[in-house]
Amino acid sequence: MTTEKSLIDSALRGWKSNVERAEKLFGDLSAKQLQQEVAPGKNRLIYLWGHLAAVNDRLLPLLGIGERLHPEFDGMFISNPDKSVQLTVSGQSLKVAWQEINQKLWEGISQFSASDWAQRHTAVSEQDFKREPHRSRFGVLLGRTAHLAYHAGQAALARPKV
Amino acid sequence: MTTEKSLIDSALRGWKSNVERAEKLFGDLSAKQLQQEVAPGKNRLIYLWGHLAAVNDRLLPLLGIGERLHPEFDGMFISNPDKSVQLTVSGQSLKVAWQEINQKLWEGISQFSASDWAQRHTAVSEQDFKREPHRSRFGVLLGRTAHLAYHAGQAALARPKV
Repeated sequence: MTTEKSLIDSALRGWKSNVERAEKLFGDLSAKQLQQEVAPGKNRLIYLWGHLAAVNDRLLPLLGIGERLHPEFDGMFISNPDKSVQLTVSGQSLKVAWQEINQKLWEGISQFSASDWAQRHTAVSEQDFKREPHRSRFGVLLGRTAHLAYHAGQAALARPKV
Repeated sequence: MTTEKSLIDSALRGWKSNVERAEKLFGDLSAKQLQQEVAPGKNRLIYLWGHLAAVNDRLLPLLGIGERLHPEFDGMFISNPDKSVQLTVSGQSLKVAWQEINQKLWEGISQFSASDWAQRHTAVSEQDFKREPHRSRFGVLLGRTAHLAYHAGQAALARPKV
């Protein structure tokens, strides 16, 4: 394996394991369990899950893979705080959406070459990228991996005891 | 910038921003605030901070940078759960240790070449590394970045309102 490939392989493994951890944390919870707040007065589990799904969905155009699958998630899970908007998605349909989003994402990112990864993401202009070459697809992948971990840490606090 | 350098630069930026976020979350809290649990019955802030410091300290030998600065942290913050052992470190001394550990780590990792990053870490044998080439220093860096983010998400729940 070349050095470049080895570095990218590590990042893809990190991404995958964080997606899988989130799925384990949220995927088997009942509708009632998903209503649980991670700490008193804080976000509910269903909100965190929808938030992660929406942020991952946004990666599809950001990384140049394709169109979003669920732009309707933004109003419920990104642009408004929890409990301020009626959720029109159930835990079950969220699980299906989560899997579709991450499947499509994985099909895209697992094909990228090293040079694809070092390219700019679609929200930065060619000109800005010259000044700020760290605004690459790879930087986005690592940032979103940390984002998954950040909220997984919160969700783990509310995990029902087995 | 070469592709390899760009990938590594992204990972170092991700590491640094997660270390800085943790320092912002914990660094200015009073002794009393550090006693706060992140959720009812869960870890206290001081435990999470010590835990992150201890895990980062372990990176020094794991990445082949040098000896640990604070092996005495393990008993308080890794091998035993919170509230089971008397802490012999104050918030103030933890802050000094945190900064020394992360400074020494940064001096080491910011010098690594791409090929250094793709090498095995010190807890995997040469033989095992042939079978499992993902057990590299770079994999460790990314994993520990996610570890910082995971607990930062928890600590953020207990952050005192400004």
